[in-house]
Amino acid sequence: MSSSARRGFASDNAATIHPEVLQAISAVNAGHAFGYGHDAYTREVEDRLATEFGADGGVFLVFNGSGANVVCLRSACRPWEAVICADTSHLNVDEGGAPEAIAGLKLLTSSTEQGKLTPALVRPLISRLGDEHAVQPRVLSLAQATELGTVYAPAEVQALGALAHEHGMLLHMDGARLSNAAAALGIGLREASTALGVDLLSFGGTKNGLLAGEAVIAMRPELSEPLLYLRKQSLQLASKMRFLAAQFDALLTDSLWLRNARHANAMAARLADAVGAVPGVEITRPVQANAVFAIVPPAATQALQEQFDFYTWEEGSGEVRWMCSWDTTEEDVEAFASALAQSLLVNR
Amino acid sequence: MSSSARRGFASDNAATIHPEVLQAISAVNAGHAFGYGHDAYTREVEDRLATEFGADGGVFLVFNGSGANVVCLRSACRPWEAVICADTSHLNVDEGGAPEAIAGLKLLTSSTEQGKLTPALVRPLISRLGDEHAVQPRVLSLAQATELGTVYAPAEVQALGALAHEHGMLLHMDGARLSNAAAALGIGLREASTALGVDLLSFGGTKNGLLAGEAVIAMRPELSEPLLYLRKQSLQLASKMRFLAAQFDALLTDSLWLRNARHANAMAARLADAVGAVPGVEITRPVQANAVFAIVPPAATQALQEQFDFYTWEEGSGEVRWMCSWDTTEEDVEAFASALAQSLLVNR
Amino acid sequence: MSSSARRGFASDNAATIHPEVLQAISAVNAGHAFGYGHDAYTREVEDRLATEFGADGGVFLVFNGSGANVVCLRSACRPWEAVICADTSHLNVDEGGAPEAIAGLKLLTSSTEQGKLTPALVRPLISRLGDEHAVQPRVLSLAQATELGTVYAPAEVQALGALAHEHGMLLHMDGARLSNAAAALGIGLREASTALGVDLLSFGGTKNGLLAGEAVIAMRPELSEPLLYLRKQSLQLASKMRFLAAQFDALLTDSLWLRNARHANAMAARLADAVGAVPGVEITRPVQANAVFAIVPPAATQALQEQFDFYTWEEGSGEVRWMCSWDTTEEDVEAFASALAQSLLVNR
Amino acid sequence: MSSSARRGFASDNAATIHPEVLQAISAVNAGHAFGYGHDAYTREVEDRLATEFGADGGVFLVFNGSGANVVCLRSACRPWEAVICADTSHLNVDEGGAPEAIAGLKLLTSSTEQGKLTPALVRPLISRLGDEHAVQPRVLSLAQATELGTVYAPAEVQALGALAHEHGMLLHMDGARLSNAAAALGIGLREASTALGVDLLSFGGTKNGLLAGEAVIAMRPELSEPLLYLRKQSLQLASKMRFLAAQFDALLTDSLWLRNARHANAMAARLADAVGAVPGVEITRPVQANAVFAIVPPAATQALQEQFDFYTWEEGSGEVRWMCSWDTTEEDVEAFASALAQSLLVNR
Repeated sequence: MSSSARRGFASDNAATIHPEVLQAISAVNAGHAFGYGHDAYTREVEDRLATEFGADGGVFLVFNGSGANVVCLRSACRPWEAVICADTSHLNVDEGGAPEAIAGLKLLTSSTEQGKLTPALVRPLISRLGDEHAVQPRVLSLAQATELGTVYAPAEVQALGALAHEHGMLLHMDGARLSNAAAALGIGLREASTALGVDLLSFGGTKNGLLAGEAVIAMRPELSEPLLYLRKQSLQLASKMRFLAAQFDALLTDSLWLRNARHANAMAARLADAVGAVPGVEITRPVQANAVFAIVPPAATQALQEQFDFYTWEEGSGEVRWMCSWDTTEEDVEAFASALAQSLLVNR
Repeated sequence: MSSSARRGFASDNAATIHPEVLQAISAVNAGHAFGYGHDAYTREVEDRLATEFGADGGVFLVFNGSGANVVCLRSACRPWEAVICADTSHLNVDEGGAPEAIAGLKLLTSSTEQGKLTPALVRPLISRLGDEHAVQPRVLSLAQATELGTVYAPAEVQALGALAHEHGMLLHMDGARLSNAAAALGIGLREASTALGVDLLSFGGTKNGLLAGEAVIAMRPELSEPLLYLRKQSLQLASKMRFLAAQFDALLTDSLWLRNARHANAMAARLADAVGAVPGVEITRPVQANAVFAIVPPAATQALQEQFDFYTWEEGSGEVRWMCSWDTTEEDVEAFASALAQSLLVNR
Repeated sequence: MSSSARRGFASDNAATIHPEVLQAISAVNAGHAFGYGHDAYTREVEDRLATEFGADGGVFLVFNGSGANVVCLRSACRPWEAVICADTSHLNVDEGGAPEAIAGLKLLTSSTEQGKLTPALVRPLISRLGDEHAVQPRVLSLAQATELGTVYAPAEVQALGALAHEHGMLLHMDGARLSNAAAALGIGLREASTALGVDLLSFGGTKNGLLAGEAVIAMRPELSEPLLYLRKQSLQLASKMRFLAAQFDALLTDSLWLRNARHANAMAARLADAVGAVPGVEITRPVQANAVFAIVPPAATQALQEQFDFYTWEEGSGEVRWMCSWDTTEEDVEAFASALAQSLLVNR
Repeated sequence: MSSSARRGFASDNAATIHPEVLQAISAVNAGHAFGYGHDAYTREVEDRLATEFGADGGVFLVFNGSGANVVCLRSACRPWEAVICADTSHLNVDEGGAPEAIAGLKLLTSSTEQGKLTPALVRPLISRLGDEHAVQPRVLSLAQATELGTVYAPAEVQALGALAHEHGMLLHMDGARLSNAAAALGIGLREASTALGVDLLSFGGTKNGLLAGEAVIAMRPELSEPLLYLRKQSLQLASKMRFLAAQFDALLTDSLWLRNARHANAMAARLADAVGAVPGVEITRPVQANAVFAIVPPAATQALQEQFDFYTWEEGSGEVRWMCSWDTTEEDVEAFASALAQSLLVNR
């Protein structure tokens, strides 16, 4: 592959597979195993995840984040029920309309400060209860870390959980980057999610060093049966499941999840430091996990994108996103910061 | 993994990943690559597949076979259109209701001889055209090889394609085991599918040595746009796409698809020979690809399942299925045949 | 309307509105009334229907039969659950794919003798319980009278209900022509439906003298909430509900339902007698309600259709359907029988 | 019906059926007519409507407004396409989630001034074209009159149509109260809708004196086929269609639509005049059609609701809605205004 020298900050899914993950796949690549998760090894790994999160409702491995989210929502909602989320959430803007087309669900969205919902923002959306002309809120979904690189404090998640439960609703966490959030908070995966009132969790692996794999973690036993059937029906049931299981086995071994996430976060902090001082660069979001958002003159952006992969986040403002991953190196950061400084000298 | 010594004939997805496939994944595991297939390497592999199949409508890699099938059908059908298929098809009995729940489509089914549709069986289902009270047939879907281990002759596929096209319908092939069929027929992948009138193909990889991966192959340019959006919306768009691409790269290199499929077929033939002679075993389907179906006394089945993994196909008749895969060995076959013979002595 | 002189046997929905029904609409056409059923009069009529059927789960008036059926099934099934019905059922062949596209449900069908399911036919479809690759049967749906004009004996309905309940399933009755069945059996509406184990009933009005209106009758309190929301979401909630209510008020007053149904049945019996004796006419189904099915030479059919409206039921066999309604007259029957006899003399 | 003396301003669907409409139903209540619109009279009325609107894509009568809207959107959108509308639109807040659950579509909403979209509000929602992670805007939907009682000027509709067409999108008008808007503007139905660039129209009847009935009007021939099938599949195909047709026949005869709408509008203007002068009443929306919105002290609202039916629109602000209809009388208005004044004396 000729692009092996290519480096960038496009996304944490532009990164490679962590060697320990590939090694784990290799290690289970022997013998025959019943498909679809009905093998002993997959059950072991599911148990390991269940223990990690204190999950009473089961663990369901799936292919990708959209899949995890849609399966979670389908398991919790009846057709007239709705999901409250941030208007910037992946659910709302980056699932290709799957919540509506595949799950048949309406999203009730709120604009936010830096991607984070609050009880004050959510409360007005819990309305028209019992009115058959309106959808009925059933799930409150937050992303941790958020799509804007911010991180909820544990008490903030708890407050949202309490609000949800007070109204008979469930709290869903889109944890595509839960590891980065937990690392940033200095707490465990469970402490950052299910211990705070999360009922349903999409636990991300792909963005943190896996080949492909996410885990649905359910806290309520009554969700097990729906999840079993809906994972399959939602096209998210892998036949050679042991190879998904192996990836999560590796992720939990010697805290690989933490090593990877901590590194990605550190690289983002370093990048923010390095570029924040460059005149002409305005960092636009608190850098709390592994993303740096900034406004840069468009000409500089264009010039830089010839050397490094990254996305413009908002055409209008010229805001760009730089994402760090487990395999971002200090050299990547230095090279980028220096190219940026250079570019700004030329392109202001 | 303690089950590494476990052997069996449960399914071709109980098998391991072929070493050349794992090697290919490793080989591209360097550098950063844009996600979701927007990297140069994935495009190369897509082109390679497009060339292999003569595909003008594009190639779309997906996670699994249910995903490939549902994405294909969604791309071809409007909401009032329907899909004609065998009542024994995976579409009808093993997708967990996804064609109906995810694609919203009705299946019009026919009973068959040994899993194979014929124009005579299909023709009565092409009816009530223009009647808004009835769904309108739009896709004719066949599986090659079939779920019963039988293989359509090329002329049989052509005849179904001609019938479909005559009525403005598309021919879809569920090719989860296309490689086995092509190997059995002694022809190429294209000769066994798109060259015969297939408009939309689910080309299987997982059952033929991949970790996970299937490819949607489209012959009609007008299907490209729907497939682009529907792969994403149907939760089948991998972010780290290069690792799906690498698996198909390996599959096409040095005809790995053919080596694997030919071996699996040969093992099935050997198994059929070995067990067909055992008194008390009745082989129930023509053994044309990598499956052997047989009726065996239930007590023998039960005893055997303690040693070897395999499924009972039909509770009523006691019919069982023994599936061979790329990693089935001659020793597996001998050990099984001998255990079966032993078991029948005891359990008749 | 110039076609006022046109007569025929096309369907019981080709008939007029019974004058007592129009009169009831007129009678409530005064004053303002809250919409969507939140008015006192509608509640009264709902109570009247609930009493008639002994319904504990509520009464929900809807526009049409497809609507009643789809709302019933949506209220009972989760996305991976399925509905067992006859392959000739309206659900399967005449809802335009709504069960699949609108409710997302798979139908598991059985061929039958004369449109009637039996426990022996249904039992094999209750299979693969707990297997996530297969849809799980949840509703057993029968039509009373059937689409082929036959009528289940009460004990036959009871047996199907017992089978359903034994498996934790619900019994749904498509009662578009329940009145005709009850009239034929000489029992009440309740005795012919909910008293026999029916959990969910689509009680038909349109085909028995209403302008438009069907009622969903639910026997289980846990269905009330789903039905409330799903009637609205399924586009079946009338705003000026009092005018639907008035029609059912009329239908229950002085047993209009029975007078109408008994008359329609009698006309069908008379028609069967009149034409059954004509050489060249073969009556193909037991005439138990208001339909007569027969095989007649195609040339005769064509000639007759110039004078009288009716449908060919099956192109292949030339089977036709003659449907009688509350407004079919003895003159209609005589004229038709005599035209048929005449036509057969000429067209044999 | 004991509530015949009840009067109020709850909704224009709390009104009665106009006598000319009931008379038209009666007039066609003779003879047999093919069901589902396949009768000569329905075709005549469809032609009459097609001529009125200059519709080249056909006319499809349906039961209710939610049905008309959902059928329109389904006919125009593929599964990954989206609908732009006001956040206060009926589509977004009062269809019980049907656009998402039944049509599978995402709504892209904008907040507005008084319920009216503008090109400046819509333009930012036409974004991410060609990006498979985002839904693709396909329909721009506006309500005329709006849900807040305001009316678009013809040039405003034209500007939205031009914007839509420039991007290959269709303009849909939710015309549940098109008659009121046209009457307010002093122009014809066509001049207020299809002549301004509307491609798909939900033409309302129920709120303007019908028993129940709306018409989907399509300007593009390529929409005919989808509409035919989707009306049926969306549970909106009436069997005794002639009785829907008769209502529209009446509505177009001697400009009943205009007489009714003009009267309702005049009553709203009179009401606004009468109550606008009352101290403590703040009229909150321009009164341009048949609705009056106002803020009134909650205690007064509560007292008044014992005498007259009407809805609180927003709990928070105490805003209420008073809707006038074809059968609102001057006496209704006087009685209400006087009760309001009285109540405010007591309840301020």
